[in-house]
Amino acid sequence: MKENIPRIVGLDQIRKILPSVDLLPAIEAGFAAYSEGRAVVPPVAELLFNDPPGDVHIKYGYLKGDAHYVIKIASGFYENPKRGLSSSDGLMLLFCQKTGRLLCLLLDEGHLTNVRTAAAGAVAAKYLAPQKANRIGIIGAGIQGKLQLLYLKSVVSCRKALVWGLHQAELEAYQEEMKTSGFDIQTTLETGEIAAACDLIVTATPSKTPLLQAGQIRKGTHITAVGSDTPEKQELDPFILQKADLIVADSLSQCLTRGEIFRAIQEKAIPKEKAVELGAVVTGKVKGRTSDDQITVADLTGVAVQDIQIAKIVYDALRD
Amino acid sequence: MKENIPRIVGLDQIRKILPSVDLLPAIEAGFAAYSEGRAVVPPVAELLFNDPPGDVHIKYGYLKGDAHYVIKIASGFYENPKRGLSSSDGLMLLFCQKTGRLLCLLLDEGHLTNVRTAAAGAVAAKYLAPQKANRIGIIGAGIQGKLQLLYLKSVVSCRKALVWGLHQAELEAYQEEMKTSGFDIQTTLETGEIAAACDLIVTATPSKTPLLQAGQIRKGTHITAVGSDTPEKQELDPFILQKADLIVADSLSQCLTRGEIFRAIQEKAIPKEKAVELGAVVTGKVKGRTSDDQITVADLTGVAVQDIQIAKIVYDALRD
Repeated sequence: MKENIPRIVGLDQIRKILPSVDLLPAIEAGFAAYSEGRAVVPPVAELLFNDPPGDVHIKYGYLKGDAHYVIKIASGFYENPKRGLSSSDGLMLLFCQKTGRLLCLLLDEGHLTNVRTAAAGAVAAKYLAPQKANRIGIIGAGIQGKLQLLYLKSVVSCRKALVWGLHQAELEAYQEEMKTSGFDIQTTLETGEIAAACDLIVTATPSKTPLLQAGQIRKGTHITAVGSDTPEKQELDPFILQKADLIVADSLSQCLTRGEIFRAIQEKAIPKEKAVELGAVVTGKVKGRTSDDQITVADLTGVAVQDIQIAKIVYDALRD
Repeated sequence: MKENIPRIVGLDQIRKILPSVDLLPAIEAGFAAYSEGRAVVPPVAELLFNDPPGDVHIKYGYLKGDAHYVIKIASGFYENPKRGLSSSDGLMLLFCQKTGRLLCLLLDEGHLTNVRTAAAGAVAAKYLAPQKANRIGIIGAGIQGKLQLLYLKSVVSCRKALVWGLHQAELEAYQEEMKTSGFDIQTTLETGEIAAACDLIVTATPSKTPLLQAGQIRKGTHITAVGSDTPEKQELDPFILQKADLIVADSLSQCLTRGEIFRAIQEKAIPKEKAVELGAVVTGKVKGRTSDDQITVADLTGVAVQDIQIAKIVYDALRD
């Protein structure tokens, strides 16, 4: 094989290799590097289309002194389902930081973005969830709602979950697909039941109105909100953030322009100084949960450093 | 073959298909669309590296209402030759504008960028060179100096060329490599000889000081400057632009921040209103050369619309 021929990897091969990959330490290291200023992550590049509606985002960057850099191209074309295609798509390109050579093209169709988002949820739970969570609450029964639960497995011992979805059919499909997940899964159509029964809650919806209210949240609860990645989307009542003892952002700068923290600041529920960065919690610069009574919130809007880390670790695993 | 598997094309295959491609009309159409506001070409995205020094540029965009969009990733890693690798590299990704699906990955190693630059030179000459050029002058004996001459073949009948290079060895290599080009090629180590003998001149060097002076330029000369694509690089004495009857930019907005026009404005040799856009000349909105006596200058800094057009036409040819 010629040196300048990159490795081209499809989704099937990526799915096969992922279980053998020790993803969480890589994602943690990414957040640490990001918070310590060792990551170069320029603003997202964007292309927008009107007819049919679509958007393309290019996220790219590298860790200083690392071996690789990564460019991710992700798209959403919302009329694709009419054509029998997924509305979202994506691929990652991994290059050598010493020579600029393309080493690997990961045609992951957006799956690695889903997985790195779930892995970030697990990192947040590792540092912020109550030591002995009684029940995991998942709000949102889509792909991300499934992956979040699966990736929590390695950081919490709890194996009981309550899942909220919009429709009974969606919840039945969730239970069916997750029946070998190792979790005892109950379902509900009321988000209030999640708040009442669960102390480790993940929200993973595209909602634009709050699904949980401040009055519902009990002491000792941790919430990871992963759904909101735009200025418009919102899953949590801003007063949940006011009530919280600790608010953690994956990227402080990004959470000032989108997500739950942005909305809570905008509605004057919290001052912007209240949020700390996940990487600072990972490195121990800032303490995570310090007692079982605390309410904690993690707001994950998605950072390119997660893409960089997952592309690298998958590439390394493929070479072994 | 599954629908979601893109076509992956290497440099050898691209080199083989290029002679069958009618490139110039496509590049002309790209400049026309750009000047008429029918192209979406966001600012270039960039990654910079220090150790070893390198830069990566992501150029991307599309023509409105077109079938595709294109993302080009180009790099320069200047210590690569020490490792036996080319310092420049590049690839293009072509996607469907209706669905976001990646259709084709062109692993052209930067060759398509070289070719689209040469094609732009031919478009400029088509509209600006004297009707019967007596001798073509090429300043710069590198890859671009060769391609510029080759691509002029389809727009001018002149087959005599005088080529300037830094060293005799470089010029001998040029002559050797171009001996089947169909041109009668003489060489010189004095740029003044180019100015004295040639009425269609292309400058294609990375020079940071002018290689041609205003006093040397005779009536009826056209100069295409393709070397300068940064604020620092400069091939022409700014007073050549002052003396010129017509100055044409590939992109007016870009030529206000880099290239010969930028330098001439900065040194107050011309007002910025003096330059017109190549696409406006192509569409006839602005006249090109109107007499054999005029001095004309084209300043080509490189526009993503050229990348879009060459990627599309190569992809179309590969499908035939």
